[in-house]
Amino acid sequence: MARTVFFISDGTAITAETLGHSLLTQFDLGDFAQHRLPFVGTLERAERAAQAVTRAMEDDGERPIVFHTVIEPKHAKLLEATGACVVDLFGQLATPLEEEFGVSRERHVGRAHGLTNVDSYDLRMEATNYALSHDDGANTDYADADLVMIGVSRSGKTPTCLYLALQFGVSAANYPLTEDDLDGADLPKSLRSAHGRLFGLTIGPVRLAQIREARRPGSRYASLARCRSEVGDAEMIYQRRNIPHLDATHMSVEEICTKVLQKLKLTRRLY
Amino acid sequence: MARTVFFISDGTAITAETLGHSLLTQFDLGDFAQHRLPFVGTLERAERAAQAVTRAMEDDGERPIVFHTVIEPKHAKLLEATGACVVDLFGQLATPLEEEFGVSRERHVGRAHGLTNVDSYDLRMEATNYALSHDDGANTDYADADLVMIGVSRSGKTPTCLYLALQFGVSAANYPLTEDDLDGADLPKSLRSAHGRLFGLTIGPVRLAQIREARRPGSRYASLARCRSEVGDAEMIYQRRNIPHLDATHMSVEEICTKVLQKLKLTRRLY
Repeated sequence: MARTVFFISDGTAITAETLGHSLLTQFDLGDFAQHRLPFVGTLERAERAAQAVTRAMEDDGERPIVFHTVIEPKHAKLLEATGACVVDLFGQLATPLEEEFGVSRERHVGRAHGLTNVDSYDLRMEATNYALSHDDGANTDYADADLVMIGVSRSGKTPTCLYLALQFGVSAANYPLTEDDLDGADLPKSLRSAHGRLFGLTIGPVRLAQIREARRPGSRYASLARCRSEVGDAEMIYQRRNIPHLDATHMSVEEICTKVLQKLKLTRRLY
Repeated sequence: MARTVFFISDGTAITAETLGHSLLTQFDLGDFAQHRLPFVGTLERAERAAQAVTRAMEDDGERPIVFHTVIEPKHAKLLEATGACVVDLFGQLATPLEEEFGVSRERHVGRAHGLTNVDSYDLRMEATNYALSHDDGANTDYADADLVMIGVSRSGKTPTCLYLALQFGVSAANYPLTEDDLDGADLPKSLRSAHGRLFGLTIGPVRLAQIREARRPGSRYASLARCRSEVGDAEMIYQRRNIPHLDATHMSVEEICTKVLQKLKLTRRLY
């Protein structure tokens, strides 16, 4: 009973893939072979996509599932004609909006996708450059930071700051709380001016030891005792200085970023 | 005729926001006030979300648009009851799948969202660390690279490699083609072992000069003449060495990454 799933779009198909994947996890039917077919924006490419669907149907002996955001009706019809189980994401969802607005959606290929405008691109670049130049305490001038993430080494600060830049256009610096900082039992001076924009990450010591062990096997740095003491000291500083913080042990980067933005009342800068 | 749009989820609401935003751009109705309400996973939070929707309706004198992926039916009903134009993304899209599979979807809050499994998290971290340690020619040992991105300075290599890591779990190094490399009119030796995994970025010289000018105003580095000559030389190397390449001038990071994966026949490593 193998089935193949296709995510097809005239854009990147990232939205179709993310949403389609979320939907499928709700059925708990095991793994499907999954194919993303992006940039299906011409008749020829739509024909080729339809052929791939038909081939999968013949090979599997089962109807493939097709999630698509193909806007051009002629192209979408080619997918429908395969006889697969076709879910037109925009088509299905636009109907209630068309009724509400009293107008039909305009089918401009490309408009619904991507971030091709120069302002958004520049904002992303700027935020990414900011995260890189202010990564790991490399530069502690936080005048232009939207937020400054703090936490012990390997608590997940860097990916979080990069994702904030790329997905939300938010400029996030990060500073590692070192043993020296933690022994002082207070925030290092360089961070005090950023109060109100500070956010503390914390992590379960067992998970932290596991991450550090992969990096420096057998080191004191990776020992559970040291991880316990660092995490405990960091959490104490967050509490004493009233810094919003989060245990990121069981969270995805998306979830961490969302919580951080929420707690600091920041909103995304780009779409 | 102001309208407010809400993106509501028991998860991050990033999917609801991305898809809802794409849908709205197809109507060309100008700007809406937009609010993302994540982590609406309890009755209390659902009530608060419904109150926010009701308040917006009173303030605007117009029905708000609500895109949601709230899985728990009781919580979804509270949103419906506001009288707003409510688009239940999972609900609307699950119906054809339920018919196809002959089973109802299981409504497990949290399962549809996030990347909370440890393997995915580790893969993302690893790919992000790889991109950072192999950024901008810092380390030219490409044995473990899924791909090596090359291009002149400021052609967009770094954000592309970081996005490949965070979104797809792909390990991408990048190497800047310097004037020295370009004068040699051939690939530097360190890159030759990576043939087959190389990808060239290129960019319109006018746009490049604009980006460089913002960074080093009035410099020779930012001059249009220098940008023209560097871009021309880089493109010649791509052609001579048969390196797949792309003009990224008018593309979003998502589009660039998708094209790169497609041309190098790489697939995403995580969901």
